[in-house]
Amino acid sequence: MGLPNVGIISPGDMGSAIGRVLRGHDLKILTCLDGRSELTRLRAQEVGFSEVPSCDELVTEADLLLSVVVPAEAASVAKLVAGSLRRTGTICVYVDCNAISPQTVTENARVITEAGSPFIDAGIIGPPPSDRGNTRFYCSGPDCSALETLGEFGLDIRLVGPLVGQASGLKMVYAASTKGTTALWTELLVASKVLGLNEALTHEFSLSRADISQRLMEGIPSMPRRSRRWVGEMEEIAATFEGLGLTPLMLQGAAAVFRLVGETNLGDQTSRQADPSLDVVLNTLTKHLQK
Amino acid sequence: MGLPNVGIISPGDMGSAIGRVLRGHDLKILTCLDGRSELTRLRAQEVGFSEVPSCDELVTEADLLLSVVVPAEAASVAKLVAGSLRRTGTICVYVDCNAISPQTVTENARVITEAGSPFIDAGIIGPPPSDRGNTRFYCSGPDCSALETLGEFGLDIRLVGPLVGQASGLKMVYAASTKGTTALWTELLVASKVLGLNEALTHEFSLSRADISQRLMEGIPSMPRRSRRWVGEMEEIAATFEGLGLTPLMLQGAAAVFRLVGETNLGDQTSRQADPSLDVVLNTLTKHLQK
Repeated sequence: MGLPNVGIISPGDMGSAIGRVLRGHDLKILTCLDGRSELTRLRAQEVGFSEVPSCDELVTEADLLLSVVVPAEAASVAKLVAGSLRRTGTICVYVDCNAISPQTVTENARVITEAGSPFIDAGIIGPPPSDRGNTRFYCSGPDCSALETLGEFGLDIRLVGPLVGQASGLKMVYAASTKGTTALWTELLVASKVLGLNEALTHEFSLSRADISQRLMEGIPSMPRRSRRWVGEMEEIAATFEGLGLTPLMLQGAAAVFRLVGETNLGDQTSRQADPSLDVVLNTLTKHLQK
Repeated sequence: MGLPNVGIISPGDMGSAIGRVLRGHDLKILTCLDGRSELTRLRAQEVGFSEVPSCDELVTEADLLLSVVVPAEAASVAKLVAGSLRRTGTICVYVDCNAISPQTVTENARVITEAGSPFIDAGIIGPPPSDRGNTRFYCSGPDCSALETLGEFGLDIRLVGPLVGQASGLKMVYAASTKGTTALWTELLVASKVLGLNEALTHEFSLSRADISQRLMEGIPSMPRRSRRWVGEMEEIAATFEGLGLTPLMLQGAAAVFRLVGETNLGDQTSRQADPSLDVVLNTLTKHLQK
């Protein structure tokens, strides 16, 4: 086989960064921009995506198709693609890269494999990738070789195991450790601010938890611009935990914290702007609560 | 005034440690052991408590009375003491040292001040105190001088502000940062274990969060022996957050995690035993879920 053509739905922050890495290694990258904003279209052109007019042509031209969307769209993208696979009679390896529960990804796998194409579960850990290599693509499933090939084209691909659900499960527990912790600390720092106890709490932290509190608070300023899409991700983690007999409440609470942040103008932040300071984040949330 | 006599209800792990420090500085320490276990009675004698037969005599003989109980008992102790204060016509400074919400402590303050005695809100941060001084007694209220006096007798007393609720509020947000985080990490590590992903997660932590994950996991082995009494504390934090317009779900979830731990034999651990290893904690919880 020659160089694989890689389709990506859709070229958002993460999807376009993946496209940029692959394009930089001379792969043809494809996407379908039907119904997408002018900004997304411009960015896709800038990155070097070849645009195709429909999902039917995307599955026909691509050897691999990466689904990189917000968790709430993951199931409908799988169904859309399954429809195109059936209509065109094509085989295209589907890679579900979304932050979804093992249950959700297992259902997506059923939808795709029933339409006759191979399915790979993938979980992305790290920022939108670059050639600096601090983003890992964990994958699992009976045959992940098509995705592993992309390891030769700038991506860091790591096999977790033979079962669909393992890579997504890893993404879920890891995201609980980072984003869940950020949600908890955001909430308690806002509570402390509303109660007028910030100075006392900061002083107590300096006595008993200097290093760790500093590190955990550092994670807060980059959260607002991602808060709205993290709501769905926290709900997927809650479902993951509930499916194992563990409480979903902590992660449902994390979803509520990010929903609150997303209700303020903090949620309008984009990755092209400088992140707000911790003080600005806490002050904005405090004022929002006191409205 | 001579040396203050200090009553303590009740001489559990925390209460008896406080008594030991004060006794070591030659204060008379009093308690009432009505209905307590033989173990508690023996420990109280060992520490040097003078036992009085009833709460009426406790408020009569003590200049200050420290309430140090599990959160669920804090309100009933305040009512019990208020009854004794009325019956005896005594004035005794009541110090509520419990891990309770600002709302609960404000209600306790009403009960005590209506019975004619001064009330001090206090929040203990740190392990049961010793002379090594890594435990801080934060206090708030219109007049905290009676408690501040105990700073001359081995305790580290720190004034937070003039309002009842501030010291408890500080305890709540601080406990959310420590125990809430421990609950979240316990849950996600158990989920990872049940999914067979522990090795992959540990490896990812070593790549992206080595220092912080190590520190946060270190907090888990000493949790089981305190898990049962932390359930009520998490519920008080949830109520604190809800009262401010923030979601109670994360801390209700933390309560559920500690309830799960307390359902296993891990909850039978005491401070006189060595803590279990992290592996033992996670394996026990995993097996409990798979029953």
